[in-house]
Amino acid sequence: MSSIGIGLIGTGYMGKCHALAWNAVGPTFGDCPPVRLVHLAEVDRDLAREKANAFGFEKATGSWRDLIADPEVDVISIAAPNAFHPDMAIAALEAGKHVWCEKPMAPKFDDALKMRAAARSAGRAAVLGYNYIQNPMIRQIASFLEHGAIGTVNHIRIEMDEDFMADPEQFFYWKSEASSGYGALDDFAVHPLSLIRMLFGRLASVTTDMAKPYAERPLKAGGKRAVETHDIASVLFRMESGASGVLMANRAAWGRKGRIAIQIFGSAGSITYDQERMNEVEIYRAGGPAAEAGYARILAGPAHPPYDQFIPAPGHGLGFNDLKVIECRHLIAAMAGEPAHVIDFEKGVEIERAVHAMAEAHEKRGWVDIGYD
Amino acid sequence: MSSIGIGLIGTGYMGKCHALAWNAVGPTFGDCPPVRLVHLAEVDRDLAREKANAFGFEKATGSWRDLIADPEVDVISIAAPNAFHPDMAIAALEAGKHVWCEKPMAPKFDDALKMRAAARSAGRAAVLGYNYIQNPMIRQIASFLEHGAIGTVNHIRIEMDEDFMADPEQFFYWKSEASSGYGALDDFAVHPLSLIRMLFGRLASVTTDMAKPYAERPLKAGGKRAVETHDIASVLFRMESGASGVLMANRAAWGRKGRIAIQIFGSAGSITYDQERMNEVEIYRAGGPAAEAGYARILAGPAHPPYDQFIPAPGHGLGFNDLKVIECRHLIAAMAGEPAHVIDFEKGVEIERAVHAMAEAHEKRGWVDIGYD
Amino acid sequence: MSSIGIGLIGTGYMGKCHALAWNAVGPTFGDCPPVRLVHLAEVDRDLAREKANAFGFEKATGSWRDLIADPEVDVISIAAPNAFHPDMAIAALEAGKHVWCEKPMAPKFDDALKMRAAARSAGRAAVLGYNYIQNPMIRQIASFLEHGAIGTVNHIRIEMDEDFMADPEQFFYWKSEASSGYGALDDFAVHPLSLIRMLFGRLASVTTDMAKPYAERPLKAGGKRAVETHDIASVLFRMESGASGVLMANRAAWGRKGRIAIQIFGSAGSITYDQERMNEVEIYRAGGPAAEAGYARILAGPAHPPYDQFIPAPGHGLGFNDLKVIECRHLIAAMAGEPAHVIDFEKGVEIERAVHAMAEAHEKRGWVDIGYD
Amino acid sequence: MSSIGIGLIGTGYMGKCHALAWNAVGPTFGDCPPVRLVHLAEVDRDLAREKANAFGFEKATGSWRDLIADPEVDVISIAAPNAFHPDMAIAALEAGKHVWCEKPMAPKFDDALKMRAAARSAGRAAVLGYNYIQNPMIRQIASFLEHGAIGTVNHIRIEMDEDFMADPEQFFYWKSEASSGYGALDDFAVHPLSLIRMLFGRLASVTTDMAKPYAERPLKAGGKRAVETHDIASVLFRMESGASGVLMANRAAWGRKGRIAIQIFGSAGSITYDQERMNEVEIYRAGGPAAEAGYARILAGPAHPPYDQFIPAPGHGLGFNDLKVIECRHLIAAMAGEPAHVIDFEKGVEIERAVHAMAEAHEKRGWVDIGYD
Repeated sequence: MSSIGIGLIGTGYMGKCHALAWNAVGPTFGDCPPVRLVHLAEVDRDLAREKANAFGFEKATGSWRDLIADPEVDVISIAAPNAFHPDMAIAALEAGKHVWCEKPMAPKFDDALKMRAAARSAGRAAVLGYNYIQNPMIRQIASFLEHGAIGTVNHIRIEMDEDFMADPEQFFYWKSEASSGYGALDDFAVHPLSLIRMLFGRLASVTTDMAKPYAERPLKAGGKRAVETHDIASVLFRMESGASGVLMANRAAWGRKGRIAIQIFGSAGSITYDQERMNEVEIYRAGGPAAEAGYARILAGPAHPPYDQFIPAPGHGLGFNDLKVIECRHLIAAMAGEPAHVIDFEKGVEIERAVHAMAEAHEKRGWVDIGYD
Repeated sequence: MSSIGIGLIGTGYMGKCHALAWNAVGPTFGDCPPVRLVHLAEVDRDLAREKANAFGFEKATGSWRDLIADPEVDVISIAAPNAFHPDMAIAALEAGKHVWCEKPMAPKFDDALKMRAAARSAGRAAVLGYNYIQNPMIRQIASFLEHGAIGTVNHIRIEMDEDFMADPEQFFYWKSEASSGYGALDDFAVHPLSLIRMLFGRLASVTTDMAKPYAERPLKAGGKRAVETHDIASVLFRMESGASGVLMANRAAWGRKGRIAIQIFGSAGSITYDQERMNEVEIYRAGGPAAEAGYARILAGPAHPPYDQFIPAPGHGLGFNDLKVIECRHLIAAMAGEPAHVIDFEKGVEIERAVHAMAEAHEKRGWVDIGYD
Repeated sequence: MSSIGIGLIGTGYMGKCHALAWNAVGPTFGDCPPVRLVHLAEVDRDLAREKANAFGFEKATGSWRDLIADPEVDVISIAAPNAFHPDMAIAALEAGKHVWCEKPMAPKFDDALKMRAAARSAGRAAVLGYNYIQNPMIRQIASFLEHGAIGTVNHIRIEMDEDFMADPEQFFYWKSEASSGYGALDDFAVHPLSLIRMLFGRLASVTTDMAKPYAERPLKAGGKRAVETHDIASVLFRMESGASGVLMANRAAWGRKGRIAIQIFGSAGSITYDQERMNEVEIYRAGGPAAEAGYARILAGPAHPPYDQFIPAPGHGLGFNDLKVIECRHLIAAMAGEPAHVIDFEKGVEIERAVHAMAEAHEKRGWVDIGYD
Repeated sequence: MSSIGIGLIGTGYMGKCHALAWNAVGPTFGDCPPVRLVHLAEVDRDLAREKANAFGFEKATGSWRDLIADPEVDVISIAAPNAFHPDMAIAALEAGKHVWCEKPMAPKFDDALKMRAAARSAGRAAVLGYNYIQNPMIRQIASFLEHGAIGTVNHIRIEMDEDFMADPEQFFYWKSEASSGYGALDDFAVHPLSLIRMLFGRLASVTTDMAKPYAERPLKAGGKRAVETHDIASVLFRMESGASGVLMANRAAWGRKGRIAIQIFGSAGSITYDQERMNEVEIYRAGGPAAEAGYARILAGPAHPPYDQFIPAPGHGLGFNDLKVIECRHLIAAMAGEPAHVIDFEKGVEIERAVHAMAEAHEKRGWVDIGYD
C-alpha cells in the first residue's frame, strides 16, 4: 500500500480520538505507509468543514455516503452514534473500504451478525474500537499468562466502574431509556468483556443480577420518570477453560472515574491491574522464601512494546489517547493482511452474544449457556 | 459483678488469642471488673498445665466439663474445634455460665439452633468470636452510614481472600473433605457475612457459584484424592433493604494474606476498606468542585474509639489481636446487661442461615430466598 | 498569524517528542493557527530525509543553519545535544525566529546569559522544554496554593529519582565525565527546580551534598575509570518566601523510573504528588472532624484544564507525551504575545543560577546565597 | 531467674504501654520466667493505687524511691517525664535493678553520659524504649541488608512527620519553649536515628537546617509568644560507611500522623518502608527481565519473627503496642545476659551525640563531625 486514504465519520469524543490517532500513528511508529486525511463527514457541511480544518482533513461533507463513494478513501473511521454503525459499516465494506468502527458493534444482535457477514464477504479489515486491549500493560499480562508465570488461571474478577450516572438528581436522559440497551452491561461492560476475550478466551455460561440504584430520575420539565435501564450489573461466569469468575459493572459508582480492576488467580500466582493506574501491573509469584514474597508492582516502560515507540525512558507513562494510536497501528497491520491484535467483527459478535446472554440470565434468574456458531 | 472468673477451653491460635485478650482487657480499658484467670482446659492435663502457666491461669484440667462445674468460673471461652462448639456452649449455658464461642457457630445448622435456644433459656451472654466487626475503622464506616455520609447504600461488594489453599501441591487434608463443610463459604466467608450483618442488616436472597481450583490433591502416602470442598465461592445477593451486592471468597488466592476488601456505593458517595490495611478507610463524598473531588484516606486514631484506649496518638496502628481485646470488652458489657456491639447467638444463626442458603443456591443453580424465623 | 512554519533540529527522543507535539497540537486544541511542518535538520541529509518523511516535514537538510535561513520557518524546535543549544538558539533568535529549546539551557552559565540577552533583543518567544510544569495536576496544585487551600506554605520536599545510572557494572560513558556537568544536579534536578520556580517562586539560599555511589566504573576496553560526576545530590534550601525545603536527586536509584515526588506543607494542610502517578494529586486540609480527616486522592479529569481538550471523561489518564502538546500550545500563545505558562529564558537563567549555586555550596561545604540580577 | 518482679514509674501513655507489655509478654512468648507486677509509682498515692488496680500491680506508692528500695523489684520501667530519667535510672542501677527507660535518654548530654556510666558500673540491663526497631518488618529490612539483597547501601532517606504541632492556632505550650530541647530534632527525630543506628551503623558528619513554621503562637491568656523551638529539622548526613543520606523531621506536617518513611538505595536494589503502613515493606532487586521488574510489597507474616508469636496467619497485622511487647521480650533477654536487639545506654549515648551535633551544625551553618568516645 503506497499511502492510506482516511475517511472519518463523526467528530465527537471518539471521532476526535480517531483523528488524533490518525495524525500520530505515522510519526509515532515511523514504519507505516503515509497517511492521508482525505475526507471527513459530519451531520452538516459547516461543522464538517470546521472539524476538517481542525483535524487536518482535506475534504468535508454533510453526507457520510460521500466517503463511501470517494475513491481516495481506503479506510473509514466510524465514530457516529451506535445506531448508525450497521448501515455505515456494511455500506463501507460493500464499497471495498476497510472499517474501523467504534464499539459497541450494534444495538441489535441481528445487525451485528449482518456486519460480520459483510466483513466476511468483503475480505476487508473490520476492526472495533476496543482500545483497552492495546495497553502495553495488558499485553504484559497476556505475556505472563502465555509463559505460565502464574500457572493455570482458575479464577477471574473484573470490575468496571464510573460515576457518570451516580447522581440521583441528574436529569433523566436517553441512557435511562430501554431503547438505549440494558444499561451498564452493554454501555460499558463490553470493555471488560474485550479484555476477558483477549486474555482468557471465550465465556461458556453466565448468571446475572442487574440493579437500578435509582428507580426514577427527575425530568427537566418537572416531575419524575421511571428508569428503564440498569446502572449496575453483576455477573457470575464460567469460561470455556473451566475457570470461574465474576464480572461487575457500575456506572453509578461515586468516586470511580475510569476503574477497570482485574484480579487473576492462577495455580502459581496472581495478577492485579487497575485502569485508573494504567501504567502499572502487579504480579505475585508463588515460590521463594515466604519472608520475601509479595506483589511486584511493575511500571510501564520500553520493555513493554510498543511503549518504546512513544517514550524511550521507563516510568514516564502513556495516556488513554495513546492506546488509540496503538490500535490504529494494528488496524493498519490488519489492512495489510499482517497479524494484528484487534477485536474484529468475528470476536465482536462473540462479545455481543455474551452481553445478550447475560441480560437473558438476569430475566431468567438462572444460568444461561452462551452458544457460539 | 465484683470480679470475673474466666475459663478457657482450647489453646490453639484462637485459644491463645482469647488468653491474650483476657490478660489485656483490664489494663487497656481500665473500667472493667477485675478479671481472674481461673481454669484452663486442654485435651490432656499436662498440656493444660503448661498452657495455664504460660497464659497465667490458676487451675488446669484435661476435661472441659471441669470448667462447667467450677463455681469460680463465670464465663467460658470456647476455642476448641468447631465440632465441639454445640456441646460445650450448651453445657456452659445450662450451667449458668456466660459463653464466648469462636466462630463458626456449629457445623450443622440444627446445632446452631439448639445453641441459640440454650442461650435464650439461660439468659446469659452468648457471644461469637467475629472480631473483624470490632475494628474502629469498621465502626467508623458504620458511623458514616448512620449519618448519611454516602446517602442511601445501593450496592455492596465484599471480597475475602487468603492463600492457604492456593498451592496445588499441598497435601490433601481435612479442609478438602466434605465433612468439614462447604469450603470457603463457611470456612471464612462468614467473616464478611458478619460485617454485612452489622453494617447493612440482613440478606434477603442469593445465588452462588462455588468452584474448585484443583480437582484433586496429592496424598502424603502417594497418589491423589478428589477434593470435596470448594475453595472459591462467588455470590450475588440482595439485601432486605433492596441493595444489591456481590460476595466473593477465595482461600486459594495466591498473594492475598488477610484481604477483606469492601466497597460500598451510595447515592451520595462511596466507601472502601481492606483488612490488609486495617488502619485505613477511604470515603468519597459527592458534591463540591469536581477539580477537588477524590477519595479521602483516613488513618485510624483516637477519634475512632476505642483506639484511644490503646494509643493516644493517631496513625500508629492497631493490630489484629487488639480487635479481640475490644471484643472481650464488649463481651463483658454483654455479661453486665449493657449495650454491646457483638454477634450473639441470635445474629449468629442468621449468618449460618445465609451460609446454608448460599450453598443451596449453588446446588440449585438459581436464586434462594433466605427465610428468617 | 495565519499559519505557523515549523523547523526542527534533532530527531532523538526529544526531537520526536517535539514532532509528535507539532502534529497533535492543532487537532487537540482546535484553536491554533494552522501548523506547517516545514523543515527538519539532522546531522546528515539522509537521516534528515528519513525523519522528515516519518514526522511529516516537507524539507530536510543536513545543516541546521538552513532552517535559520528558511523564510517559511517561524519557530525552531531545538532538540540537539545540549552543547549546541547556545549557538542554535542565538542564531535563530537573531534571525527573528521564535525558539523552543530543550532543557537544560546550556552547559555553561555564561552561554545561558547570552541566550537570554539574545531573547531580550529579539523580542521573540524563547521557551524551554520544561514539560512537567504543564501537567494539569501540577496546575491544580498551583490553583490550590493560589486559593489558600493549604494556607501559607512553610516547608517543601521534592525528590527526583531514576535508575539509569544505578548499575555499577554499567560502562563508563560521557555522563560520568566532568565535562558533562555536575551529574544529577544539572542532568535532571533542573526538572524539580522548574516545578519549584512555578509553584513557589525563587530560591534564596542553599547547601548541598553531592555523592558518588560508585567511585569508578568499568571501561569497555577493560579496566576501570574514576567517575567524575555525582549521581546523587541532596540540597537544603530556603525560598525567598522564607519557606524551608529539601531537594533530592538520585539517578542511581534502583527501582525509581520517573519519580518526582513532591510534598508541600502549609499552615492549613498539605499536598503530595508523584510523577510516576502523574494523573493523581493528594491534598489534606486541616479542619473538620478528626475522625473524617485524611488525604483526598484526586484523579485527573476535565475539571483540570486542558485535560478536557484530550479526553472528556475523568480518570482516563494523560501520558507524558501529552504534556509536550500542552507545552506546545503555550509556546504558540507566547508567540502570539498572549499569556503563557512557560519557563522562558528569563526563568531559565534563574534555574541555571540555582544549579550553579548548589554546586558551589557543595564545594564550599556551607550555605550559598543565590543572587539574582 | 525464677520470676521477674516489675516496678513501674509513671502511668501516662508510655507507662500504660509498659504495663500492657508486661501483662502480655508471658502469654505471647510462652518462654519467659513468670512476670510479677510488684510495685507501681505515681505522683500521688491515690493515683498510684488506682492505676495499680487497673494495670494489675500489687503495691502502689506516691514515691518512686520506694521502688528502688523494694527487694521484690528486679527491673524498673521508667515512664516519667524526661527530666526525671537521669535520677531515676541512676538510682535504680545503683540499687542493682535493671532499667527500661523511655526515650529520649535525658534532656542534657552530660546526664546521658552519667546514665551510661551508671549502667557500666552496675552491669545491669539498661535499655531505652526505642520500639520502632522491634517491628518485624524493620528486622526483615536488616535481614535483607545483611544478606546483600540490595548490595552495598549508598544512599538513605528517612522522614518522620506528624501533625501535632501543625495548627498555628494551637496555644503556646512547653514544646515551644527552649527548655524542652531543640524541637523536632530531639522530640522525635531520635526515632529515625534509632533506626539508622540499627540498620546502618553510626553517623559520621551532618549539616542541618532547622525551621519554625510559625514564629509565634497564641497564648491562652491572650496575646502571642515567640516560638523558641524548631518544629522542622532537615539534615544532610554521611555515615561512617561512606553512604550519604537525608534525615527529615516535621512535627507540623498536616496530614502525617505517624509517618516514618525510609528509602534505602543500594548497588543492587532498594527498599522502602512507611511506619503508617507498618506491616509492609517494599523491595526492588536489580536483575531479571526489565519487563518484570518492580517493587515487591511484602506483608508481615509468621515468616517475620516474632510475628508468629502473636498470630500464626500472615497479613493479619501487628499493632504499635505489639512492638513494645517485643521490646519487653528483648529486655528480658538482656536481663538474662542473652543476645538482645535493643538500644542500650551505650547506643543511646551515640544517638544523643548525633542529635547535639545536628543542632550544632544548624547554629554553625556548616558540617559537623560527630566524634564518638
